[in-house]
Amino acid sequence: MSDLHVSLGERSYDIINRRGSLAQCGPLAAKVLRGKKVFVISDSGVAPLYGDTVLDSLRGAGFAPSLLTVPAGESSKCPAQLASLWEALAAGGVTRSDCVVALGGGMVGDLAGFVAATILRGVDFVQIPTTLLAQVDSSVGGKVAVDLEAGKNLAGSFYQPKLVIMDPDVLSSLPDRAFHDGMAEVIKYGCIWDEALFERLAALRNRAGIEAVVEEITTSCCDIKRQIVEQDELDTGLRMLLNFGHTFGHVYEKAYRYETYTHGEAVAAGMVAAARLGEKMDHTESGTAARIEAILQSYHLPTEINAPRTAYAETMNLDKKSLGSDIRFVFLERIGKANPVRLSKEELFAKL
Amino acid sequence: MSDLHVSLGERSYDIINRRGSLAQCGPLAAKVLRGKKVFVISDSGVAPLYGDTVLDSLRGAGFAPSLLTVPAGESSKCPAQLASLWEALAAGGVTRSDCVVALGGGMVGDLAGFVAATILRGVDFVQIPTTLLAQVDSSVGGKVAVDLEAGKNLAGSFYQPKLVIMDPDVLSSLPDRAFHDGMAEVIKYGCIWDEALFERLAALRNRAGIEAVVEEITTSCCDIKRQIVEQDELDTGLRMLLNFGHTFGHVYEKAYRYETYTHGEAVAAGMVAAARLGEKMDHTESGTAARIEAILQSYHLPTEINAPRTAYAETMNLDKKSLGSDIRFVFLERIGKANPVRLSKEELFAKL
Repeated sequence: MSDLHVSLGERSYDIINRRGSLAQCGPLAAKVLRGKKVFVISDSGVAPLYGDTVLDSLRGAGFAPSLLTVPAGESSKCPAQLASLWEALAAGGVTRSDCVVALGGGMVGDLAGFVAATILRGVDFVQIPTTLLAQVDSSVGGKVAVDLEAGKNLAGSFYQPKLVIMDPDVLSSLPDRAFHDGMAEVIKYGCIWDEALFERLAALRNRAGIEAVVEEITTSCCDIKRQIVEQDELDTGLRMLLNFGHTFGHVYEKAYRYETYTHGEAVAAGMVAAARLGEKMDHTESGTAARIEAILQSYHLPTEINAPRTAYAETMNLDKKSLGSDIRFVFLERIGKANPVRLSKEELFAKL
Repeated sequence: MSDLHVSLGERSYDIINRRGSLAQCGPLAAKVLRGKKVFVISDSGVAPLYGDTVLDSLRGAGFAPSLLTVPAGESSKCPAQLASLWEALAAGGVTRSDCVVALGGGMVGDLAGFVAATILRGVDFVQIPTTLLAQVDSSVGGKVAVDLEAGKNLAGSFYQPKLVIMDPDVLSSLPDRAFHDGMAEVIKYGCIWDEALFERLAALRNRAGIEAVVEEITTSCCDIKRQIVEQDELDTGLRMLLNFGHTFGHVYEKAYRYETYTHGEAVAAGMVAAARLGEKMDHTESGTAARIEAILQSYHLPTEINAPRTAYAETMNLDKKSLGSDIRFVFLERIGKANPVRLSKEELFAKL
């Protein structure tokens, strides 16, 4: 058991990180919720695995839960699916004191979170992240969104959950590729904030090594994100550091239409590219890129992805870190310390 | 000139209420905006009248404005139109420092405001309300939304503008029915908060009387709403008073599929019904309903609308003021003083 408390004034909440907590979600949620109706939103991959466990536990705690399942895959994180869920909740008689639960990975969390943020202008929201990536990244910090044709996460809100329930046991059902997908973000936390964590991850070497101490690792990551989000809930400063590797990562994801590479794989290669660029521009300690490459290889993550030159401008102009003709880019000073640098897109493109 | 300042901490903003301010929107907006791109969202009724004036003024102040026009009418306030505007802004290269301007009535303000609240998780927003209803109601308070199949305003956000620009001159172009539509909400402010305003409106007697002092009247209304919203931005208490007449009003609007009656007309009859019910249940001073009926008649507003009994339960169960089996209903104690009362829907339906 390694729980955390995220302090955001009236929007504060707990992150429960305990083996077996999935089957305890009803009593855990009962401590923070007001209403009876609970709309559990999940996807066709996760619902068959954990839907019954969650619904049974909610029922046992006196809730009236219903399960809404969307097709698995990023393509469900779209405006049409959002509208369809809005209508389903309205048809189900949702009231302001009711709750939306996200049961799944980052896609489900982002989509269900945006539904919760906007139906009746906001109802209670509980996150039950079932992937490593969602546990360390999208379940903390309150960013919810859908994708548009023009790019990922372009329409959304900041909306904090009332509670996050993470069960380390569910991670054992992840395929290797999905586990390693999450490891990219885990490694990112070491890169931007905590050299000791980075070294620990290097020493653990592989999935088996991580799984033996996974609660400790996910809690370390959530704790770093907690510290950052507490200081910058609305993403106007420090929170930008979490974007390390993501500016290029988004370029890669989009250039391959979100099909060839997972988010983590794209971010992995993006971190190496950002470190190399930082070394070239004297923002980053020499040798940093090589250290990142080595750890990524041990977790079967790509260290380089090629994208056409046009893809950079196309994606970065729509990047939420874009400010007119400038962009805020995150460089590592060294492993464990990141800095945001505002630079012109022109200058950046010239160095590529 | 009668400007107001709405104090909501970091979300504070000014309401400019001046004749000729439409043509000054560029310099006025320049004082509060950061970026260059301005996406002006309007409808097919308003854009031909005021689009050029607004775009010219914005250009003159150094902005790069573009005009996005949706079909006039409530049916544009829907998820599909929202998604289409999201895509248009993304295709137009919106960045976080850019701005959305709503130029139109309540429909445009609610829709454009929800676009502003959610594109890139929120960009700057300026309201230019062009109807009496929008000037006194939807442009103050930060409620933005789209309608769902199941009911009006069921998906949305709380999102404050950076600035509201009201030009009393534009009200002269309103057809009588639209002007009187707004008068219902004007009268509501007298009912819930200010008996002197109520008496003043009764004495002014008709549109011509109001128009001679319209800035004073709209400022009085916005000032009442300002006081209420400052105390209860997120609609958890006092703000409920603004809902006087709306619980039944929504029933009437919906029963006639939003076609037969305008919002103000439905609210007008809803206020009379709420006052009558209040008198019957001893919440309301005797004679109140009759006073409201008299003033509504002088502004050509309906005092009674019939709806099938089933429509009440159907609409109220989805009312955002609904809390499980209860509903928060606003009664007048007397003209100038309103109280929210929590009562069971069963009890309410029995009294109808």
